[in-house]
Formats: sequence, C-alpha cells, structure tokens
Amino acid sequence: MTSSDFLNAARGLPHDRVPVWFMRQAGRALAEYRAIRENHSFAEVVATPELACEVTMQPVRRYGVDAAILFSDIVTPVEALGVGLEIRAGIGPVIDEPFRTRADIDRLRALDAEEDLAPVLETVRLLVKELGDTPLIGFAGAPFTLASYLIEGGPSKNYARTKAMMKADPESWDLLMTRLAQISLETLRGQVSAGARAVQLFDSWAGACSPQDYAKHVLPYSKLIFNGLRDLDVPRIHFGVASGELLGLMAEAGPDVVGVDWRVPLDAARTRIPEGTGMQGNLDSTIALAGVEHAKEAARDVLRRSAGHPHYIFNLGHGVLPATDPGVLREVVDLVHAEGVVNAA
Amino acid sequence: MTSSDFLNAARGLPHDRVPVWFMRQAGRALAEYRAIRENHSFAEVVATPELACEVTMQPVRRYGVDAAILFSDIVTPVEALGVGLEIRAGIGPVIDEPFRTRADIDRLRALDAEEDLAPVLETVRLLVKELGDTPLIGFAGAPFTLASYLIEGGPSKNYARTKAMMKADPESWDLLMTRLAQISLETLRGQVSAGARAVQLFDSWAGACSPQDYAKHVLPYSKLIFNGLRDLDVPRIHFGVASGELLGLMAEAGPDVVGVDWRVPLDAARTRIPEGTGMQGNLDSTIALAGVEHAKEAARDVLRRSAGHPHYIFNLGHGVLPATDPGVLREVVDLVHAEGVVNAA
Repeated sequence: MTSSDFLNAARGLPHDRVPVWFMRQAGRALAEYRAIRENHSFAEVVATPELACEVTMQPVRRYGVDAAILFSDIVTPVEALGVGLEIRAGIGPVIDEPFRTRADIDRLRALDAEEDLAPVLETVRLLVKELGDTPLIGFAGAPFTLASYLIEGGPSKNYARTKAMMKADPESWDLLMTRLAQISLETLRGQVSAGARAVQLFDSWAGACSPQDYAKHVLPYSKLIFNGLRDLDVPRIHFGVASGELLGLMAEAGPDVVGVDWRVPLDAARTRIPEGTGMQGNLDSTIALAGVEHAKEAARDVLRRSAGHPHYIFNLGHGVLPATDPGVLREVVDLVHAEGVVNAA
Repeated sequence: MTSSDFLNAARGLPHDRVPVWFMRQAGRALAEYRAIRENHSFAEVVATPELACEVTMQPVRRYGVDAAILFSDIVTPVEALGVGLEIRAGIGPVIDEPFRTRADIDRLRALDAEEDLAPVLETVRLLVKELGDTPLIGFAGAPFTLASYLIEGGPSKNYARTKAMMKADPESWDLLMTRLAQISLETLRGQVSAGARAVQLFDSWAGACSPQDYAKHVLPYSKLIFNGLRDLDVPRIHFGVASGELLGLMAEAGPDVVGVDWRVPLDAARTRIPEGTGMQGNLDSTIALAGVEHAKEAARDVLRRSAGHPHYIFNLGHGVLPATDPGVLREVVDLVHAEGVVNAA
C-alpha cells in the first residue's frame, strides 16, 4: 500500500500535505446521494453493499478528500441485534421499547461481526477495491452515546434518564456499558479485518456529562474499546460534541487522535490534549452556508491555529449540514491542500 | 429593605449563608403548577398577573429559595411586538414567519415596557408586595438567543441560518441585534422600575458560537444591555448553556455574575472568569432524577468547588427538569444553607 497523508498524520508521522475529510461527508448535501435516496430508504442503503459503497464513494469523488468514511450508522450494530429501532428522517434513531430495567440489557446479546454485520463488512470489502490508495475509515458509536439512545428511546435534550441510571443503578449501568463496549469493539475489529485502515469512535453526546461523571462512568468503557484495538495496525480517532471540558479525558481513553468540535479553538484544545495525541477538526459546519469566501477565511483560521502540527487532520467541528453547497467544501479541501503547512514530525 | 444574602452574594458583599435559587424553579415539577396549567395555557398564565404571581411564588414556598424569578418567557417581549409566535408545549417558541430578509427586521418596532409589557410589570408589582424581603429576579433573553428563534423559526440544533446571517449579511445582523438589545434593555429596565431587585440575561444558546464569532458578533450587543443597566442599583447575572469557552467573554460583557453550566466544574470556571465577577451554578439538573442521596453528594461537590467564594450563588447548571421530585430540591436548598461556607469578602 502507498503511504497516505491521512494515515501518517493520524499517527504523527512525516507527511506532505495536511489531510482533510469531513464528518458526514456522504449524505444529503450531495445531489447524487439524494437521487439514490429517492428510491431507497436510509436503512436500505446501509443494508445494500453496492448502494452503501456508491454513497461512500460520492464525497471522495466530489470533494477530493483524503479518506472515505463507511456509510452506515452508529446504531446499526445494536439494530442488527434486534433491539427494535428505526432511524426516522429528521429525528434520528427511535427505539420501540426503551431500556428501563436490568432485564432490558439482555436484549443485547454479543455481536458476531461476520454474521450480524455481514452487509456492512461486504460494503467495506467492495470499498477497499474501489478506493485504491484512499484509506477507508471504519466507525462505531461509543457506549455512552449508544446507551443514551437505548435508555432515552431516541435523541435527547438532557440525557436525564441515562444519567439517572448511571448513578442510581451503577450495576445495570456497568453491565450495559460493558456490553455496548464489546459490541463497538467487535464492530470496529470486523471493519478493520475487512479492510478499514483507520477507525473513529463517535461519543457524540458524551459532552452532556460533567468531567467528574465522564471520568467515573464513561471513560472506562471507551478505554476498553481503544485497548481492544491496540494490536491492530490502525490509527484510532475519538470524537464528541460539546466536549471542551473532556478533551484531556478523551485522550486518556487511548486514541491516537482526538476530534475537537467547533467551540474550542485548536490552539486552546492543544493545551488540553497531551502531546503524543493528535487533533482533528474543527471548521464550524455552519460556515458553508455563509458562502465560499467566509468558509475559506474560517478554514484559514483553523489552519493557523493548528500551527502546522504534524499530528493533525483537518475536518469540520461536526457533520456536514444537508443545506451545504458541495462547491464550498470542495474549495475548502483545495485550500487545505494548497495552504496547509506540515512542520517536521 | 432588609439585607439579602442573595443580593449581597450577587455583588460580592459580606453575607451569612450561601444563597440558592433554581433556574426554571417555577413550572411542571410542581403539582400546584400543573394544577393551574390544567385550566390555563402557558400564555394565559404569563398574561394574567394574578396567575403569574401565584406561579412565581410557588417555588419560593416549596423550596425555601433565596430569590424568586418572574414567571414569563424570554420571547414574551418580541411576542408583545406582534412578531407572530407561539410557545408550543414540548417544543418551545415557534415563529409563524421566520426572519429571513432585512425587511423582516422592521417587524420589530421599539418596545415600550409600560405599554407593551403592562401585564408583566403588573405581575412584578404584585410580586414585590407578596414577596416581602425575598428579592425578585427579572430577566430577558439576550440578542443572540432571541435572534436565533426569529431566524430559525423555532428551537434549532445548529443555528446555521443565524450564523449565516451573522457572517454573510453583517449589516442586517447588526440592525437586528441592536434592535433586540434595545428591546431586552427596555424589558429589564421596566422590570426593575416595577420592583425587580436583580436581573438575569439569558443567552441560553450563545454557546453554539465559537469564541471568535461570539467576540465579534454577539458580545457587543450583550454589552449594550449591561452598560444600559449600569445606572440602576441592581446586580446583573449573565447565563448561557455550553458556554465553557465563552465564560471570560461573557464576563467582559459586563455582568456582576456569570452563570456556569454543569459541564464546567466551578474551580475550572473560576480560572476563566476574572476576579471581580461572581459565579452562579452549577448542579447538574439531571441529578435530581437519581434520587436525594446522589443529589446531596453532587451538591456538596459543587459547594466544595465554589471554595467559599463570597461572590457566589448556588444554582443548577440549567433549568429544573419537569420530572424532578420537588422534595429532592428542597433537601438541596437545606443542604446549601446548612453546609455552604462564605469566606470573608
């Protein structure tokens, strides 16, 4: 395999250009994605390797990004275990019968990636052929974020039931989080054995936790996952929204790179993440809606604050918004490639 | 008027006990509130001084808090200007025709508090009689948060249109934010002249902005409001959610006290807020759902991190959740009063 700026940057190894990809780069911002979705539901696309492969490739062609990310959903593995959930348009995952008691936790049996995620792994295999030198990023949801969907029954504003279980019923919490960590670990290991060359663990909603709660009730389970990936030769990225107070703890969980949301300027984030751990981020996704000149100015500010650090990957601070003009993101990619500076590692 | 622990703490003056009140302390957690709402809509309660007064008093009786906060809504003043909005249960404010062009801004004429907010000010006058020595906190929404409702048309996940106007159409943004600042300032001055003894400016959603955007496009307008209150003899509190990166800038806007959400431990917040500005917060609202012992343990942790600072007010990190058992909050109040320590100012 050829060397990749993305993979090298993810490890802090020497590379030529600042690599860039975008969270949620596949999706509704692209007309070619919307065309496919006219005839296929989200679930159909994920479950059909040819479609999932095509949709994963679309942003690679359009934007010229340095990595693809598998088109799937963080709840796909628990869905495959028959938990009874549906991804509703404009809402997100909705659980038919939310987890409320210890007995509910038994609805999560152990995951066998080859068996339970067969279409997903087939997508990965197709993508590896299609992508050539461009690396594929596999991903999974982290235990807190998955638990929040299962317990709240869907997206939540305040995660009150989740945090109540965490504290008032620590034994059930431990059982649930341990099981979810195993499911996510098996998901990521399966994706890597099928050919993914990097992974990202999304703890999208962990930022709802105070650092005290995160350290005690969340961190140990994310650590299980990163430890469980250590023998594989793939860089591991860890990301959450509103995680400014957690950046150091998220680094402690053991990833190679911590993703930073748009709220924390990268120079400030650098002071909270130990040297030795890389950073990814953090252009405000909403800037694309302000037009290309504002997006370029903001991208330059992100690059400036990244300070040429050799352990850095350019990305948004959250996902691409559906209303985004893809032409704006294409120009951001070109700017990062043309103007980004990589200091000696 | 008698001296008040709350008012003294809000100014950093000597006082005996750590004062405590709860954001959204009036509302659905209380059976006596739900009883009133069985026969009256939210809008009716706000518009009927006797009802609004009663609902404001309920948590003062139940919890024994050190301050009352006017029962109203941050969108009440713009609603009074005929903007065409409705507060929908379980959703929040919804605007019939969201602001999209410069012409929309003319839908916001100048506010005359005595005229446009007559029922609200009447509520304040009733409350002042009813409350005796307990101070009443008036409040208003800050320009960014109000603008986000007007532009997005309701609650938003990412504030994309709001931030796009901020950058792509800075003249309209300036006009809108200036007008909203005038409306909020007039609202607060009206409440104070009717008898409110402190005010809180809620920039609930400003934490969606990066510090760079906040400093340039939000801070100047909040500063207008705090400057415009300077001649009144009332302490001024400033609060927003997910505002960890903004605490120093929010202090720069000019309040006497900055409210801290539950994400930032108070000892960390203290390093970002200059001495001379007080702090308020920040018990995680969700802890009440984990039961009284966990709530007390968490309240003790908050007190410990406040370190006996004489310029400190105990509060939640956001609002009381409807599922809260009021008995738990009552015990938290008693604990703060019994165990809170106030060092010499």
